[in-house]
Amino acid sequence: MTGTCRRKSCNVGLVVVGSVALDSVKTPFGEVHDALGGSAVFFSIAASYFTDVAVVAVVGTDFPERHIDFLNAKGIDTSGLSVESGETFRWAGVYGYDLNDRDTIETRLNVFEGFHPRIPAGLRSSDFVFLANIDPELQLAVLDQVKRPRLVACDTMNFYIEGRREALLETMRRVDVMIMNDSECRELTGEPNLIKSSRAILEMGPHTVVVKKGEHGALMVTGDGFFSAPAFPCESVFDPTGAGDAFAGGFMGYLARSGDVGTPNMRRAVISGTVMASYCVERFSVDGMSSLEPDDIEGRFEALKGFSDFETEPA
Amino acid sequence: MTGTCRRKSCNVGLVVVGSVALDSVKTPFGEVHDALGGSAVFFSIAASYFTDVAVVAVVGTDFPERHIDFLNAKGIDTSGLSVESGETFRWAGVYGYDLNDRDTIETRLNVFEGFHPRIPAGLRSSDFVFLANIDPELQLAVLDQVKRPRLVACDTMNFYIEGRREALLETMRRVDVMIMNDSECRELTGEPNLIKSSRAILEMGPHTVVVKKGEHGALMVTGDGFFSAPAFPCESVFDPTGAGDAFAGGFMGYLARSGDVGTPNMRRAVISGTVMASYCVERFSVDGMSSLEPDDIEGRFEALKGFSDFETEPA
Repeated sequence: MTGTCRRKSCNVGLVVVGSVALDSVKTPFGEVHDALGGSAVFFSIAASYFTDVAVVAVVGTDFPERHIDFLNAKGIDTSGLSVESGETFRWAGVYGYDLNDRDTIETRLNVFEGFHPRIPAGLRSSDFVFLANIDPELQLAVLDQVKRPRLVACDTMNFYIEGRREALLETMRRVDVMIMNDSECRELTGEPNLIKSSRAILEMGPHTVVVKKGEHGALMVTGDGFFSAPAFPCESVFDPTGAGDAFAGGFMGYLARSGDVGTPNMRRAVISGTVMASYCVERFSVDGMSSLEPDDIEGRFEALKGFSDFETEPA
Repeated sequence: MTGTCRRKSCNVGLVVVGSVALDSVKTPFGEVHDALGGSAVFFSIAASYFTDVAVVAVVGTDFPERHIDFLNAKGIDTSGLSVESGETFRWAGVYGYDLNDRDTIETRLNVFEGFHPRIPAGLRSSDFVFLANIDPELQLAVLDQVKRPRLVACDTMNFYIEGRREALLETMRRVDVMIMNDSECRELTGEPNLIKSSRAILEMGPHTVVVKKGEHGALMVTGDGFFSAPAFPCESVFDPTGAGDAFAGGFMGYLARSGDVGTPNMRRAVISGTVMASYCVERFSVDGMSSLEPDDIEGRFEALKGFSDFETEPA
């Protein structure tokens, strides 16, 4: 069974392939059980503020209908969300007082274990594709199904860097932008200097690498330059889960909206990702991003300009 | 015995009180033995590119005359450099391949153990004072000797945060700017969130805190705002020793040159500190900063504008 898009038009320019999960998260500030989560969810909600976006993922028959209603209400195309018999992917984690570190308590892949992404025909010509953090073999399977997208971005994690290195390197040869954590960059390349590490990643195939550094912002490296983006100064980080995917959603959504993949616009897309991540971490699950207004997003975008400007001459 | 300033004019606007040391440093890229080091040295050399600067510190009778000649040749006033019988402060450290971590192999305080900073009469009216990383009791003794400076900045370290907390808090009540590492901020305040931690530091007295984050740049927090400064993308970090002091020297030197302590100029001063730290880490000891031209400094300052700009519209 495949979900149906409830929107009038399903011509979308951005598609994400990743996980949809039910997360149980405990932080010093509270806890939630079986809350809406997964990389494709955080990504698509963030992106939905900028452009039409479609999700390709799998859930079990236990997945609450209200979550699909919620995604559709955000304008997200769920025609690629397959419902398989069995339980939805469950993840449980605990964050300590220092929210930079987390312990995974439980990972039950359930139906996600047999996930074989199938891109619906109507989505195969999408201009923008995001390969969220899934097995690189599956990322390659997605690339085999899409038809000359303008820009493909890709995330990964230590598990695949260690256990699926060859497939990951093959994926990287075929994507344009890697979006990774700083620790993952260092692990993938074996190079502790982040600048050298980023350059080493460019030699593996992508023309751009966006390094997510959490509270330290983000760094974008291309063949001809660097862009250092500030973090939004979040005083109330409540639950960091999904921040990286929200970042990627804001980034790709911004690019897809304008269709402009030149460097200046890529820089603004990094800022857009930063804004979405900042809203994501302020509440549990997707609550921080569930009902934003354009002014909220524009406000933090402009604030980030103010936080990083040192060119303005004093009056 | 007190050193003599060999420059024609000794009217200086910036004074630093700290250590002068002979450092033995080993990194994966090489090693040096008994090289010129110490917080007051790195600070004053960086500051010397911007303004007149004077050093108040102590060395032993074994301290090579050529080092004093070198400082004087950079225009640094050494009238406050006291030479005491005994050996100069020695520090030895080893950096691993990941240059973010270092192990101290040996610390021999020698004459530094009995250091009682005495500010020469001609320097007591300095407008800008930097209290480098020394015992807060000594920092307080300095504050008792100077006469209404326009701006006092202060560094510290985990050793004093843990062992001299009361004296440090007293110092902080009397200074304007704290310049600290991110880990020190968190330790001092017990607050892992860096934004909350910075605000907590402001409540301890200073009106500004500049948080040094190494490869992640710097964050300046004041009562009414944030400034996020990019790091310079150094691909060849050779020896990180002294980077924090070089940063402080570039920061204070920039402020002292203009005499402008308004927020926009403070932001540019942070960038100036970033530039000096970037040159510092590219060679052993002070070699990376020993013979810079104004164009070198201006070049990286302008480059940092380019690395952080996202306002420019595409052509």
